[in-house]
Amino acid sequence: MSQSPLRIAIAGLGTVGASTARILKEQQPLLAARAGRPLEVVAVSARDQSRDRGVDFSDCAWEADATALAARDDVDLVVELIGGSEGVAKTLCENALSSGKHVVTANKALIAHHGMALAQTAEQNGLGLACEAAVTAAIPILQSIRQGLSGNVMQRVVGIMNGTCNYMLTQMEETGGSFDAILKDAQDLGFAEADPSFDVDGIDTAHKLAILTSLAFGTTLDFDAVHVEGIRGLTPLDIEYAAKLGYRIKLLGIARRVNGCIEQRVHPCMVGLDQPMARVPAEYNAVETQSDAAGKMFFEGAGAGGDATASAVISDIIDIARGHVQPLFSIPAASLSPLKSLSINDHIGSVYIRLSVTDRPGVLTEVSRMFFEENVSVKSCIQHGEAPDEVVQLAVITHETAEASLTKALTRIGELECITETPHMIRIENL
Amino acid sequence: MSQSPLRIAIAGLGTVGASTARILKEQQPLLAARAGRPLEVVAVSARDQSRDRGVDFSDCAWEADATALAARDDVDLVVELIGGSEGVAKTLCENALSSGKHVVTANKALIAHHGMALAQTAEQNGLGLACEAAVTAAIPILQSIRQGLSGNVMQRVVGIMNGTCNYMLTQMEETGGSFDAILKDAQDLGFAEADPSFDVDGIDTAHKLAILTSLAFGTTLDFDAVHVEGIRGLTPLDIEYAAKLGYRIKLLGIARRVNGCIEQRVHPCMVGLDQPMARVPAEYNAVETQSDAAGKMFFEGAGAGGDATASAVISDIIDIARGHVQPLFSIPAASLSPLKSLSINDHIGSVYIRLSVTDRPGVLTEVSRMFFEENVSVKSCIQHGEAPDEVVQLAVITHETAEASLTKALTRIGELECITETPHMIRIENL
Repeated sequence: MSQSPLRIAIAGLGTVGASTARILKEQQPLLAARAGRPLEVVAVSARDQSRDRGVDFSDCAWEADATALAARDDVDLVVELIGGSEGVAKTLCENALSSGKHVVTANKALIAHHGMALAQTAEQNGLGLACEAAVTAAIPILQSIRQGLSGNVMQRVVGIMNGTCNYMLTQMEETGGSFDAILKDAQDLGFAEADPSFDVDGIDTAHKLAILTSLAFGTTLDFDAVHVEGIRGLTPLDIEYAAKLGYRIKLLGIARRVNGCIEQRVHPCMVGLDQPMARVPAEYNAVETQSDAAGKMFFEGAGAGGDATASAVISDIIDIARGHVQPLFSIPAASLSPLKSLSINDHIGSVYIRLSVTDRPGVLTEVSRMFFEENVSVKSCIQHGEAPDEVVQLAVITHETAEASLTKALTRIGELECITETPHMIRIENL
Repeated sequence: MSQSPLRIAIAGLGTVGASTARILKEQQPLLAARAGRPLEVVAVSARDQSRDRGVDFSDCAWEADATALAARDDVDLVVELIGGSEGVAKTLCENALSSGKHVVTANKALIAHHGMALAQTAEQNGLGLACEAAVTAAIPILQSIRQGLSGNVMQRVVGIMNGTCNYMLTQMEETGGSFDAILKDAQDLGFAEADPSFDVDGIDTAHKLAILTSLAFGTTLDFDAVHVEGIRGLTPLDIEYAAKLGYRIKLLGIARRVNGCIEQRVHPCMVGLDQPMARVPAEYNAVETQSDAAGKMFFEGAGAGGDATASAVISDIIDIARGHVQPLFSIPAASLSPLKSLSINDHIGSVYIRLSVTDRPGVLTEVSRMFFEENVSVKSCIQHGEAPDEVVQLAVITHETAEASLTKALTRIGELECITETPHMIRIENL
């Protein structure tokens, strides 16, 4: 191997950083053969230098300040595993790129908010900027869209991209527990953060979706254009009804080309039980692409974890070591088309609606009249149980309906005297 | 776009060739942006120049002899879509590489038999040789193993890689039809070739598996080391029993690391109905990888068809256009480790056995004694129906057993007077 080594600095030695360093060291000969040159970890940065991470860092330089890694002359590539869209992570990536260093990051928030600017800096300087690990960890979905599907015009990208939500939804279905109870369990088991809002409110999925959208559709990245709803509002009753109706509820990120616009939305969806997406196990992630030449393609794998995320980080490092530097979004960031975003109000689709109604004559007529008046066409309607003057549940499945009409109908229905609770609505996604 | 165009010649204008040419022409600006330079089809070769393929080839040079494409000065990359492991396809690829042209091919037979030599020629000349389309068409599995999983040590690769077999098995299950009847239907519908042996006898799957093995495990390619059985022997009764026992029969290609050796086998398998692999629809292909860092990863998509195969061909072209040239088997062919092959006789696994026996006292004792004497441990045994002195079916599931023991036991059992038909055996694959 006559080629010069690629000298790597790792910023952040949490689970992913430690796994990355360990694999790079343990598999040195194999990875060097695949990269066409040796890969050497020469410098690291982490808050606590004394902690045992199961890796010998004695031959690495330590920097207390991660941004100092960007200034080192002995570093060719910086791996950013600090996290967060601002602060040290951002400064480190900016400085690394402007001082001639490649950047590999697992930071979805950073790329979702500043990916356009970072990509432009990388491209102007002829440097690699890669973030395979930021989206569904080990699943090589960015690479598969950027390369494997490079001959395709993308029509839709749909994914389960948050392991915490997928775990919680699976648990809610299996145990019948409430969102709050399952969240507490997940936190106790380490499957949910102390502050779970990024995960359960759909923000993490939206970060990933925004990145996928730009890559898949060649449009400018606009995180704020993503419609985001999380899973807090889901009840055991809805999960039960979903199963009865032949669906399972999954938190999906969906980007779709609709009439020359791009629709980007993250929300709980009813997915048909016969679909692979409905069967993605608790701790897994999955993405389905649909494109003109390749048709439907389904990718499923580990969406989190130290080693699984390190797997993606190292694949980016090896690509760059080989000199395979490609624009982050497949085409230069400066050439991305301006995003023409489709508002959620213009979304058209079927939905499931659950109404808590007082069981008395005429209620169904009142409800269906409002649907009719707002152009919402009802496909099926199930009332479970009978209990005169008590509250019963009315489950409605609609035909394809404009979201704006639906919102109006639900507002009016929610104001009816016979309705005892805000209507619950979950969109049905036909995959 | 200041870069010089990549000048492409296409040999073979069947379904895949025509799709490739059409997409390259129709999506010219998009593909140029992704490739970083224009992609131009400058020359083609096909038997019949007059046939309407829905693509305008008037600006291309035509060569009656495909091998002449390798000699043209105006060609940078040859796309070989002729097929066959010998003859014109082989000569064309060899000549193209030795005269400084990149090669992209969809030809699994060629690569399975001559991939090592072709890869060495390409690597010695610094040229690209890529065959993503040869294995599971649109699914970017070679690329995902070569790049997305480049940080991993592979443990197992398993796949449904032949659409004809998967279609036929699905039809056999759905209709209860025999192999011969379903084959005839498939031939009438164009889903099976007039001579179906490459598909139904497992050879096509074995070609693909041999390629995957070399790439995934870094071992020399040895097609002859693959143990191959096709689906001709499968009966509606076995398919019915599989369902009763919670399995579905799929023709799988399996490569696995076992005690420092590599096991490569293609045969019908019983796959648990709860596994994604059991649910791969008729016309799809799928591959599951298992590796140390990424864990299990599942890829599913169109495994055949003009556009789906062209999708993979074009992705290889774009990689090469970008200058992303990597050894076909991830590391240089000359550096691949000699394959230490595990013989099928050393395979250890559970199997399903169906015996046609004359229903009389003592038969079960006789059969189970032979299993016992040959060290085959029976896990469960089901006899359906009762019919004194008539033939009944005895289905046996074994614990993990060495194949050699099993063969001995089945030979002895097959010779028993009470056995009226050669025993049927299908291996159970725990995914």
